[in-house]
Amino acid sequence: MAQPTPLFNRLALIGVGLIGSSIARAARAQGAVREIVATARTPATRRRVAELGLADQVVESNGAAATGADLVIVCAPVGVCGEIAKEIAPGVHFVPAHPVAGTEHSGPDAGFAELFVGRWCILTPPEGTDAAAVDKLAAFWRMLGANVETMASPEHHDLVLAITSHLPHLIAYTIVGTADELAEVTRSEVLKFSAGGFRDFTRIAASDPTMWRDVFLANKDAVLEMLGTFNEDLSRLTRAIRRGDGEALFEHFARTRAIRRGVVEIGQDSPAPDFGRAHPGLPEAPLPRPYAVSDET
Amino acid sequence: MAQPTPLFNRLALIGVGLIGSSIARAARAQGAVREIVATARTPATRRRVAELGLADQVVESNGAAATGADLVIVCAPVGVCGEIAKEIAPGVHFVPAHPVAGTEHSGPDAGFAELFVGRWCILTPPEGTDAAAVDKLAAFWRMLGANVETMASPEHHDLVLAITSHLPHLIAYTIVGTADELAEVTRSEVLKFSAGGFRDFTRIAASDPTMWRDVFLANKDAVLEMLGTFNEDLSRLTRAIRRGDGEALFEHFARTRAIRRGVVEIGQDSPAPDFGRAHPGLPEAPLPRPYAVSDET
Repeated sequence: MAQPTPLFNRLALIGVGLIGSSIARAARAQGAVREIVATARTPATRRRVAELGLADQVVESNGAAATGADLVIVCAPVGVCGEIAKEIAPGVHFVPAHPVAGTEHSGPDAGFAELFVGRWCILTPPEGTDAAAVDKLAAFWRMLGANVETMASPEHHDLVLAITSHLPHLIAYTIVGTADELAEVTRSEVLKFSAGGFRDFTRIAASDPTMWRDVFLANKDAVLEMLGTFNEDLSRLTRAIRRGDGEALFEHFARTRAIRRGVVEIGQDSPAPDFGRAHPGLPEAPLPRPYAVSDET
Repeated sequence: MAQPTPLFNRLALIGVGLIGSSIARAARAQGAVREIVATARTPATRRRVAELGLADQVVESNGAAATGADLVIVCAPVGVCGEIAKEIAPGVHFVPAHPVAGTEHSGPDAGFAELFVGRWCILTPPEGTDAAAVDKLAAFWRMLGANVETMASPEHHDLVLAITSHLPHLIAYTIVGTADELAEVTRSEVLKFSAGGFRDFTRIAASDPTMWRDVFLANKDAVLEMLGTFNEDLSRLTRAIRRGDGEALFEHFARTRAIRRGVVEIGQDSPAPDFGRAHPGLPEAPLPRPYAVSDET
C-alpha cells in the first residue's frame, strides 16, 4: 500500500498524557503528520516522552512548541487550557474538539494508537471559523480512526456530555466513596464481591482526579441541571422500593433494558460477555476537551 | 487425566436461566454430577432446555424434579423462591448460596460454563445446618471454579450486597432512565457518545427486570439504608461543585482512585484496556440467591 500523504507538516502536542500520547502514537502509525513536537508541564514527563520516542522534539515552552507547527493540539486538563491558549494564540484557527474516548489510566505510558478507533470526536467550531481548517481537522481525526460529529454549539456539547459522561462519573465517584466509609461492611468485602456491579463503578471512579476536578468546575451548570433531574428520578424509584411497588420497578427496569440494546446496535459496545477478567470493559473516562488549534497561515 | 468422581448423583435445577444453564454447563464440563434433571416455569423454556441438551430430563413439576435428587438448586428470582421451597422442602438440608457472577443476558441460551470461574460464591448456612452438607456444597461450587466464602448471617450478606451490587444497579437503572427522558439531548446522542462513561451504566441497567424487582423488594431495608448514605455523599459533592471547591473534589477523586487499585490487585478485574469493543466488561449483574438445597438422606 502507498503511504498516505501527511495532512500536517508539524504537529505540536501541548500535554502528553493518555490522550496526547495516544494522538502521537496514532498520528505516527497512520502517517498523518511529518513530525511531532511535544511539551509537558513537568521535567519528568518530558523526559519520559523522550524516552518513549513519542515525539521528534520535546521542548519546555508551549509557545516554542507551537512555533512553526501547522496543527497544535492542547491535551491538558480543561482548567489550564485558557492559560495555554494565551501562550500559543496569535493568528490561528481555533477549533474546539473533544474525542470521546479514554481509559482510567493516565500519563504518556497509558496511551495507545487504537484509542480513537470507532469512537466519536465532537467538533464545536465557533461561528465564522474557517471551513477549510475545520475540514482538515476532521480529516485528521478520521485518519486516527474516529467518527467526527459537528455540534452547533459548545453549550449543547456540554449538556450532552453532562448526561453521557459527567453525571455517570460523579455518581461513580460518590458510590465508591460511600462504600469505603461504611462501618458494617469491610473494604475487603467490598473488593471481593465487586463483581456484583460495583466493579464497573470503581473503574470509572479511577479516572484522573485533576482532569475531573476541572471538568466539574468548568461544566458546573449543565452538571447541576442533570443532577436535579437524576435526583428526582432516584427519589421516585426509592419511593417505589419503600412502598413495595413491584410494578413500577419492573416497568422502569424493562424500559432501561431496551436502551442498552440501542448502545449495542450502534456499535458502541459488544453483546459478548467476557467474564470481566482478561478483557475488562473500559470506563472510557471521557476527556477534557483538547482544544485543537489549526494554523494554516 | 482421570475423570473426577461426581460429587452428586442427581442435580435438580429449578429454573434454567442464565444461572441455572451456566450451572448445568459447568457441572457437566467438570463432571461434578452424574445426571441433571431440570424444570422451568414456561413450556417454551422447558422446550429450549431440552433442545440445548442442558439436562438429561426436563420435567414440569418442581416436586417431581426434586424427587430422587441429592442436590437441588433453586435458580429463580428471589420472589418465587419461598413458594418453590414449599414444593421441594421435606427432609432436606437447606443452605442459602449466592454466586456473585452474571451478565446482563437472560435465559438458557445466555449461560456458559466459565461464568463462575474466579468469582465468589457466598454461603449463609443457618445455625445448626449439617456441616457435611455445607462442606459438600462448597466443594461443588469450587469444582465449578468459584471461591467460596461463608458469612455469619444472611443479614450481613444483605448489607454487603446492598452496597456492592444492589445500589449500583439502582443507580444505573435511574441514570439510564434519566437520560432517556431529557428534552435537550436526543436518545441518538446519548447512544452515540455513551463511551464517555454512560455505556457501563447501560450494561448494568440491562439486567433482568423480574430478578431485580424481586431483589429490591426482598432487600428493601439494606438498600434504603445504603441509599441514605449515598444521598448524603452525593449532596456533599454537589455542594462542592456548586461552590467551586476544587480541592474537595480533587481529594475525593484521588481517594476513590486508590480503591480501584484494590479491585485490580485482588484479581476481580484486569488493568488492561480493551477499548470496550471486542470484549466489553461485564456488568456482572449480581444474582438473586439461588437457594441450594442439599439432600443427602
